[in-house]
Amino acid sequence: MPLTPEQQAEIDALRAQSRPTLRAVAEGMEAHLYTAYPVLDHGFVRVIDYMGDDAAITQAARVSYGRGTKAVSNDEGLIRYLMRHWHSTPFEMCELKLHVKLPVFVARQWIRHRTANVNEYSARYSILDREFYIPRPEDLAAQSTVNNQGRGEALSGEEAARVLEYLKGDAARTYDHYEEMIGQEGQQGLARELARMNLPANIYTQWYWKVDLHNLFHFLRLRADAHAQYEIRVYAEEICRLVKDWVPYAYGAFEDYRLGGATLSGKALDCLRRMLKGEEVTQETSGMSKGEWREFQGVVD
Amino acid sequence: MPLTPEQQAEIDALRAQSRPTLRAVAEGMEAHLYTAYPVLDHGFVRVIDYMGDDAAITQAARVSYGRGTKAVSNDEGLIRYLMRHWHSTPFEMCELKLHVKLPVFVARQWIRHRTANVNEYSARYSILDREFYIPRPEDLAAQSTVNNQGRGEALSGEEAARVLEYLKGDAARTYDHYEEMIGQEGQQGLARELARMNLPANIYTQWYWKVDLHNLFHFLRLRADAHAQYEIRVYAEEICRLVKDWVPYAYGAFEDYRLGGATLSGKALDCLRRMLKGEEVTQETSGMSKGEWREFQGVVD
Amino acid sequence: MPLTPEQQAEIDALRAQSRPTLRAVAEGMEAHLYTAYPVLDHGFVRVIDYMGDDAAITQAARVSYGRGTKAVSNDEGLIRYLMRHWHSTPFEMCELKLHVKLPVFVARQWIRHRTANVNEYSARYSILDREFYIPRPEDLAAQSTVNNQGRGEALSGEEAARVLEYLKGDAARTYDHYEEMIGQEGQQGLARELARMNLPANIYTQWYWKVDLHNLFHFLRLRADAHAQYEIRVYAEEICRLVKDWVPYAYGAFEDYRLGGATLSGKALDCLRRMLKGEEVTQETSGMSKGEWREFQGVVD
Amino acid sequence: MPLTPEQQAEIDALRAQSRPTLRAVAEGMEAHLYTAYPVLDHGFVRVIDYMGDDAAITQAARVSYGRGTKAVSNDEGLIRYLMRHWHSTPFEMCELKLHVKLPVFVARQWIRHRTANVNEYSARYSILDREFYIPRPEDLAAQSTVNNQGRGEALSGEEAARVLEYLKGDAARTYDHYEEMIGQEGQQGLARELARMNLPANIYTQWYWKVDLHNLFHFLRLRADAHAQYEIRVYAEEICRLVKDWVPYAYGAFEDYRLGGATLSGKALDCLRRMLKGEEVTQETSGMSKGEWREFQGVVD
Repeated sequence: MPLTPEQQAEIDALRAQSRPTLRAVAEGMEAHLYTAYPVLDHGFVRVIDYMGDDAAITQAARVSYGRGTKAVSNDEGLIRYLMRHWHSTPFEMCELKLHVKLPVFVARQWIRHRTANVNEYSARYSILDREFYIPRPEDLAAQSTVNNQGRGEALSGEEAARVLEYLKGDAARTYDHYEEMIGQEGQQGLARELARMNLPANIYTQWYWKVDLHNLFHFLRLRADAHAQYEIRVYAEEICRLVKDWVPYAYGAFEDYRLGGATLSGKALDCLRRMLKGEEVTQETSGMSKGEWREFQGVVD
Repeated sequence: MPLTPEQQAEIDALRAQSRPTLRAVAEGMEAHLYTAYPVLDHGFVRVIDYMGDDAAITQAARVSYGRGTKAVSNDEGLIRYLMRHWHSTPFEMCELKLHVKLPVFVARQWIRHRTANVNEYSARYSILDREFYIPRPEDLAAQSTVNNQGRGEALSGEEAARVLEYLKGDAARTYDHYEEMIGQEGQQGLARELARMNLPANIYTQWYWKVDLHNLFHFLRLRADAHAQYEIRVYAEEICRLVKDWVPYAYGAFEDYRLGGATLSGKALDCLRRMLKGEEVTQETSGMSKGEWREFQGVVD
Repeated sequence: MPLTPEQQAEIDALRAQSRPTLRAVAEGMEAHLYTAYPVLDHGFVRVIDYMGDDAAITQAARVSYGRGTKAVSNDEGLIRYLMRHWHSTPFEMCELKLHVKLPVFVARQWIRHRTANVNEYSARYSILDREFYIPRPEDLAAQSTVNNQGRGEALSGEEAARVLEYLKGDAARTYDHYEEMIGQEGQQGLARELARMNLPANIYTQWYWKVDLHNLFHFLRLRADAHAQYEIRVYAEEICRLVKDWVPYAYGAFEDYRLGGATLSGKALDCLRRMLKGEEVTQETSGMSKGEWREFQGVVD
Repeated sequence: MPLTPEQQAEIDALRAQSRPTLRAVAEGMEAHLYTAYPVLDHGFVRVIDYMGDDAAITQAARVSYGRGTKAVSNDEGLIRYLMRHWHSTPFEMCELKLHVKLPVFVARQWIRHRTANVNEYSARYSILDREFYIPRPEDLAAQSTVNNQGRGEALSGEEAARVLEYLKGDAARTYDHYEEMIGQEGQQGLARELARMNLPANIYTQWYWKVDLHNLFHFLRLRADAHAQYEIRVYAEEICRLVKDWVPYAYGAFEDYRLGGATLSGKALDCLRRMLKGEEVTQETSGMSKGEWREFQGVVD
């Protein structure tokens, strides 16, 4: 369980206080606010704040004076139109602020999305907790044999046991030494900013992360994808669930046009048109490389 | 008055509806929400939405679980510390969304601040209104004689009258022609995206503009400055007034460290230290160029 | 002709001086450096500087020590792979700096692409030239009757003539008044930063614009598209021609996967799969709206 | 020594090939190109490419047709003026591309500077080398007793020895286990993307990092500062040395106005003016907090 009783009490206190506002309110998101939804063994995602709702997207697209819509059905149609035609600026008018607890190696992937605001827990200033990500046996995957950047089957029993032993043992030992090095009883105590270098990448960190909806969708498209590393994908999937309750029309359009869609090259479109006319097209006659052809098959089959 | 009765009714409707939320609420900003505060002759600034308050800044700086503060006094001290030491990320955790109506030549300066989200009224899609910025006589300034990029005294009566006549006459004529060109009675009607090219830069446009507090402060420091062009400065000043009511601690720190502060070069600091020891320092002995020395005098005198 | 003899002499002088460098050199681009390629009636695009070539993309993707490639064929394959899988960061390792002269209403669209560096000619500081974009008769398009944001046929003779007369006459008159207002003979002279507001949006401005290749491709995809306004599209097309000579592999991949490609939604992919199996699919049975169906037909027909 | 003979040969090959270019060439930087300058025990910084020189800054500021300058002395004066008045866009017209090898915990600080382009060596795809940062004894600093985020004296002999033993031992053991886990002899072999989680933050990574000069100066101001962590400061200092040879005027202005300068608050300026008039000002009569007063003393003493 990732929260102490004190932390849970702070969250409960926030969830108990409701105040009036004139701003756009998304009921679906109010229900999630502050709650820490668990991800992996010690991580979580929780919504700290949000700005806007589905109507805020169309309101901005129309630069309107009021709530910005005549009929609800119009909103959905307009949102789908905006998504389909890559009009990104109206989606930037919604904003989400999350508190995330995550292993450092996941954080290192996550931070590569630059168009977001981040405040991370400082290991120069503070002491990190003794919490490490240890995969479940079924998540201990072997290196993929077909893809240099991917996973294959789960490791078999004995090998898996050895790996878990290494991961747990090294985490415990390096953290023991971290604690010893910064300790100040009977010694000077190593600076925290130095001692942290001994900690492995499966230690947990946490941050506040704030992003607009357009850039969040970009993040989710890449990280909720089947090719993303499992350990970041589970965070992305948890966020998808929250976004769906926050801006259901926008999320629906995102699901259809981005998550469930595919981009085809000019060559692939040519092949498609030939195939629709009844022609038999093979990799040799497609003009595509083997890799492209395989991916194309994956899309149309 | 920049609003039609219908627009005012839409605003009033929004101001009449209060709903409960669990999010951080800034009372000072709730009082301003949706109201169109006039700027220049037809422009306005109005707050559409905001995220966060002073406590949200310290909460993010501490990556905390609850509201993030023990005592209110701590919040102010921490905010001043963060501002003083250029810790910008906690200020990025607050966000403001404005609806602004402004002349095109002001919009062209404004848009140079890139780290913001914008949805502008589309003159490809829609027809612009017949509204032009015509300066008040006291704002019809002469070219500065000392600064290529500045203003001097207000023009004298007859010259001012001639200028106003030109501005009004040209605005009226170009708009008449714009309307005629896009008109579809008895003719095809020129495409809007082309016809708009006939309109001068004092015509009004409008947009939704969303920005985080750090980047807003950067905008305000440059645009609320005495050297900024008057026509954008009045917008910046109006926004300052709103921000002060929204995040009073952060605004106070901004006022002290940025608006009211000054950056001194290594050379200037050397001179200062010599002067504080009683030495008489002149431009010749300062190591500074004439321009730098003049600016230095302006700071310390 | 957009250049004065003095300007042409400055360009010729730069083109005459060659110096040795150890950096990556793209012969295709060296041939274009500094030359002002005309666009519209008074505009141009010219390359001021560039960083990198095709090999620089793969070199960065591999974080390599040397030039980063074994065989040239590998480079092309890797570049196509990176483009196909939306790996954007290696393309960010190339950079282009342009000097562009363009009408203000085009500049206003262009500047919406935020991830770029811009230095624009200052009308606060300097005096604008008397140069206005006046469309050729065949470019004087009527408002589209099917698309609020588009053009239809060219205007017929008499209407076209009237439009041209308005555009030319208003440009001349507003510029005369601009000149008169800032004149300092026998009067104080209005500040330039104010006088410019009288000038219409078809006056020319110019800027230095610097952008990385990934963001340039994004710009080109939107602005070289058939739905972009003609007056910005011709700039985008000119830049496409330059980029093709600079990074031929990257441009080839861009042409195939972006310019010539299409993104299909999950619903559209479902329809495709049904159609490939021989099923007759209509808009009614497609699950798509009329607009989506029409666009889908445009892709597969 | 951080380079293998093969890597050094690749670098030597690049340094041996000179080609003609019409672009701006900075002799000072040509002399550094590709050379790997050592930083820390296994790290380095080397310049892969650059765009522009001092003249490119003034050329962009003037939006000029030729090289953009009359007299060299004018260039320096203009560059100092631009730096003094925070005109950042001309400095964005120069660009630098570096190859950096650095410990992961330094990379984690570095990456927080978002306005840059990065391609990092992928530990999902490739195997990391057995190279860890082990501080020299004199860099093994104790936690500061006055500043939660800082260092004090170097650790004394015995404690230092123990710390080094922990760092070296844990690095060796975790790397041994990393190798064992990914090994494929007689077992499936754990996926690289998982195995890397066992490696501590002092392991070395490497990346290509590209940034414009304005944002580079921002990075250097924060990271070459006395308060920056030593291990990132040495990288910043090495880069300062390179930039000084690349754009000497811009670097000189940066050194005077940013590195050697200080920003004073409105309150501090008030005190200064009082002190210059001969008044004795103390913390109590200054209106400043103790912390502010201490920092103010540090600036003026």
